[in-house]
Amino acid sequence: MKKEITIYTISDSLGGTSQKLLSAVMAQYPDLIFNNSYRFPFINKESELLDILQDAIKDDAVVISTLVDSHLAAAAREFSRVNHLSYLDLMNPFFEIIKEKTDTQPIEVPGVLHRLDTEYFNKISAIEFAVKYDDGKNPQGFLESDLVILGVSRTSKTPLSIYLANKGYKVSNLPLIPEVPLPQVLDKVDKRRMIGLVCDPDKLAKVRSNRLDALGLTQATSYTDVEKIYEELDYSKKVFQKHQAYIINITDKSIEETACIIEEHLKSLSSNKY
Amino acid sequence: MKKEITIYTISDSLGGTSQKLLSAVMAQYPDLIFNNSYRFPFINKESELLDILQDAIKDDAVVISTLVDSHLAAAAREFSRVNHLSYLDLMNPFFEIIKEKTDTQPIEVPGVLHRLDTEYFNKISAIEFAVKYDDGKNPQGFLESDLVILGVSRTSKTPLSIYLANKGYKVSNLPLIPEVPLPQVLDKVDKRRMIGLVCDPDKLAKVRSNRLDALGLTQATSYTDVEKIYEELDYSKKVFQKHQAYIINITDKSIEETACIIEEHLKSLSSNKY
Repeated sequence: MKKEITIYTISDSLGGTSQKLLSAVMAQYPDLIFNNSYRFPFINKESELLDILQDAIKDDAVVISTLVDSHLAAAAREFSRVNHLSYLDLMNPFFEIIKEKTDTQPIEVPGVLHRLDTEYFNKISAIEFAVKYDDGKNPQGFLESDLVILGVSRTSKTPLSIYLANKGYKVSNLPLIPEVPLPQVLDKVDKRRMIGLVCDPDKLAKVRSNRLDALGLTQATSYTDVEKIYEELDYSKKVFQKHQAYIINITDKSIEETACIIEEHLKSLSSNKY
Repeated sequence: MKKEITIYTISDSLGGTSQKLLSAVMAQYPDLIFNNSYRFPFINKESELLDILQDAIKDDAVVISTLVDSHLAAAAREFSRVNHLSYLDLMNPFFEIIKEKTDTQPIEVPGVLHRLDTEYFNKISAIEFAVKYDDGKNPQGFLESDLVILGVSRTSKTPLSIYLANKGYKVSNLPLIPEVPLPQVLDKVDKRRMIGLVCDPDKLAKVRSNRLDALGLTQATSYTDVEKIYEELDYSKKVFQKHQAYIINITDKSIEETACIIEEHLKSLSSNKY
């Protein structure tokens, strides 16, 4: 029987940071069952906090906190110490280091990360941009894009565009299909902003065939034919060469990894004054 | 002059967890300049790690680590102790608590969070789904959706759909326009899955007017007229009532907060065996 562990997450805002850490930790224990349904966002009263901690004791839970209010955080720490509750504070150790280094105190305003400021609205419009200019829908958008992603069908252009949009980049993408002429506007796109995705042909055939399965379609079309895929990929590589796109092989890479490579590429461009 | 602090982030994978915590921490110090360009992903050699830590000493930096390899993590900890380097390990304190509670060890495989497994591919197809069924593009998608989001123009349907897709939900959305008949398929959608977004009319007028500015369009159309917006919102509320949609007022709420409310709503449905 698999062992279980119960996790409480407590935040005076949404608790996204705890969830992110928890995902990374959970991935390291494939044989452990994490009971992670006890999420307590928007906690701002001490009585409420102590009730939750009492329940955590009953459940023999581990408590992860991202409370930014120093009074609440101290109450939770003290309660956990006295009651031998496993308590992990993600914010305060960092706050203490910053105090030590710069003699500066946090403002202790919960939810300030989610403030509706310029950065937030830029991110929102980047996401709307990526949806609007997905799949070559309006090639004029290429000229306004921070990044134009090119690749044959099923090279993960859409999720990659959305992921980068979440980081604030204005991204458009264009599927490359040998039979379809390239939009002329592509010639005007700054080559430093162009990303070409390639993939191992056999892998791509498998991905496409899974895709057709998911759509409930019959197999053995040219879409999944490895010979045809070789041709498509050759064509795409010629396009990348012509436009001097930065080429990334996405085989066995996650979206996050590919996005990381793209960000490093952008960083190297700006530091080289290319 | 504003004070500065330099942060190094070190990971044997992408370092996304450090960046998430860092964003939350930085938001608490509006008057401090964070120099956060020193990101070191995919660190897996001790020599490489120690070189980075040497540089961190020169830069008087704070080091945040999410190394899962216990040998590397111990080397970094010991180096930091000896050299009085400010070092924050996000993973190991959690690992120790889990060891204590369950006597289980982490597998110490870097990047396992980004493994291309079923969960990963479900998330990717949820994002593709959200893009495909954005803006009422194909109302048949409503029947396959976990959530159908309804609202008048500029109630943040698209970014909300994408945010929820990132959490694995299949989401479609439909703009409500009084002059445009509703797609018939809406009558067949399970009301528990329908979300109606409303907003304060004055706020909405302002958001729309900013939108037109951004698009470089002239003002004073019915799109930004508060009277007309009242009518639109009234119409949308009637639609929500008729379809018994779960209504959320998004005024002054971030996408993350609205998504949190929707997830709580879904949780309450499943626990009530509605």
